[in-house]
Amino acid sequence: MARGVTSTPISMETSDELCRASLVAAPLGQGDADELARVFAALADPVRLRLLSIVAAQGEVCSCDLEVPLAKSQPTISHHTRVLVEAGLLHGEKRGRWTWWRVSADRLAALRRVLGS
Amino acid sequence: MARGVTSTPISMETSDELCRASLVAAPLGQGDADELARVFAALADPVRLRLLSIVAAQGEVCSCDLEVPLAKSQPTISHHTRVLVEAGLLHGEKRGRWTWWRVSADRLAALRRVLGS
Repeated sequence: MARGVTSTPISMETSDELCRASLVAAPLGQGDADELARVFAALADPVRLRLLSIVAAQGEVCSCDLEVPLAKSQPTISHHTRVLVEAGLLHGEKRGRWTWWRVSADRLAALRRVLGS
Repeated sequence: MARGVTSTPISMETSDELCRASLVAAPLGQGDADELARVFAALADPVRLRLLSIVAAQGEVCSCDLEVPLAKSQPTISHHTRVLVEAGLLHGEKRGRWTWWRVSADRLAALRRVLGS
């Protein structure tokens, strides 16, 4: 990071619902089902899945390096990253003009547990 | 099953894309991302998540036993089971008037692998 550039974390406080929920252990309550549906909705888009996979493969990626591989404009990328942050799947750090993104490994692990691992 | 009642399996041939795809190993190709997005879209609904969890918890469930716990009509339940069958997450067996549903453990395991297990 350049000297003097402030760094601002970008993430959402996500609820604990997802940690307790399981799709295969017992019938889901309405609250857990609502919370889980929101997270799966964030994954139900091919651009967001490709974005997540690019970030996951590289560890940390600047928004400025997502335009070319996704063939999307910066406003479109901002929309998709916002949806992923709200679902707790992505978190970022604003450094100067650009945001650097990382995938939430904890959130992916929680989803795997939900699906019965 | 009552004697003389024919049994008809209900399932979809799902592609192999999901087995190869991984969200965390390398950038997803467009085909894998499209296929995965369709499966996550099937999970992005609280009624379908509750339906899956009820079937998973009991192993096998008759459509006729889903109306009360889901508080939904039979046509609504049929719509949601059809979406889940098309995503490869549910398979059924028609016995006489009713269909008996099971969750596809293989499909859930494939999704866990996609998410990085």
